[in-house]
Amino acid sequence: MDWHKTTLEISTRGKGLHDITREVQAQLRAWGVREGMCFLFLPHTSASLVVSENWDPTARADLAAFMERLVPEKESWYTHDLEGADDATSHIRAMLTDTGLSIPVDEGDLSLGSWQGIYLFEHRARPHQRRILIRVLSVD
Amino acid sequence: MDWHKTTLEISTRGKGLHDITREVQAQLRAWGVREGMCFLFLPHTSASLVVSENWDPTARADLAAFMERLVPEKESWYTHDLEGADDATSHIRAMLTDTGLSIPVDEGDLSLGSWQGIYLFEHRARPHQRRILIRVLSVD
Amino acid sequence: MDWHKTTLEISTRGKGLHDITREVQAQLRAWGVREGMCFLFLPHTSASLVVSENWDPTARADLAAFMERLVPEKESWYTHDLEGADDATSHIRAMLTDTGLSIPVDEGDLSLGSWQGIYLFEHRARPHQRRILIRVLSVD
Repeated sequence: MDWHKTTLEISTRGKGLHDITREVQAQLRAWGVREGMCFLFLPHTSASLVVSENWDPTARADLAAFMERLVPEKESWYTHDLEGADDATSHIRAMLTDTGLSIPVDEGDLSLGSWQGIYLFEHRARPHQRRILIRVLSVD
Repeated sequence: MDWHKTTLEISTRGKGLHDITREVQAQLRAWGVREGMCFLFLPHTSASLVVSENWDPTARADLAAFMERLVPEKESWYTHDLEGADDATSHIRAMLTDTGLSIPVDEGDLSLGSWQGIYLFEHRARPHQRRILIRVLSVD
Repeated sequence: MDWHKTTLEISTRGKGLHDITREVQAQLRAWGVREGMCFLFLPHTSASLVVSENWDPTARADLAAFMERLVPEKESWYTHDLEGADDATSHIRAMLTDTGLSIPVDEGDLSLGSWQGIYLFEHRARPHQRRILIRVLSVD
């Protein structure tokens, strides 16, 4: 068994789902990993990770629109707003999705379904620089 | 350390929580794994995985009923409806639950709590054939 | 590669987010683990695990307040209430958050972001004794 690690740097343009599938796959190929587990971890509290539909962009649009409705920005009861109207909402949206993902690797690639992609979900209105920790346990 | 893998095939009858605990446990026993980590991954975007109460069926009924209310099917603002009224809702419900689970294995069994079961949560109205990737890192 | 495991015992005082970051870090140091993956699993169905903001307590207050609003206790349609008004709601809140977390370890510490903490989210009104299974794959 073997261990690989790196950090992916992603620039977001503000709120929305940013596809990172290809970047993770490219890293697996660079390492030559054939089989094992790939662990992704996001060391941020106002963005999150989601595995979702990758074919039709309207699916992502609906995920983002749902979050705007479920966790609206202008609620009078929020107390955590030092960094603006998207402060409390970002942490709540991150809590409802994922900070880490664990995905099997087979035959040199992520074992995602045909219609699955991996997304960085930015919850902040302004662009941010985000890091994603990639860890791979190779069992080749 | 050792590595085991297989794919579980589950037929769902439409929406609801389908208990898969016994199928996963049976696989661990077939492999003779004593200790380690069990990783489950669902390569589908309109179903998800949940660990929840396994004793009283009303608990699952309430989880499913809550999802129907939180993510209702007839919202005029959904744009992703190519596959029907349960299209956008299925992806949203999957986002709010889990696509993967990581569960410790001890003494040859999943280290679940006394009242925990593992469920495949089908979000589609019609029956589907679902696959669950099982990966086990054995540390015996 | 090496394997470490233990169980953390936490007493909660009722609903709210309980910081367990230091307890997990202390365990890593006691084992002398330098690098690998740390897996946390909660064998309970009415509490959950969350990675969130650790600097400003108002962030956690808003997470808890949001859950009270999203999954209110007095809904006439709940059917699972054998253990009281916080019975169905506890399972629903657990479903929307996490039962397990997988966090990278580097240079002898959890690779959390500067503002990330690990929280046990108690969903029951009354104090509970909770267990958290800690598993570490060391790749030193």
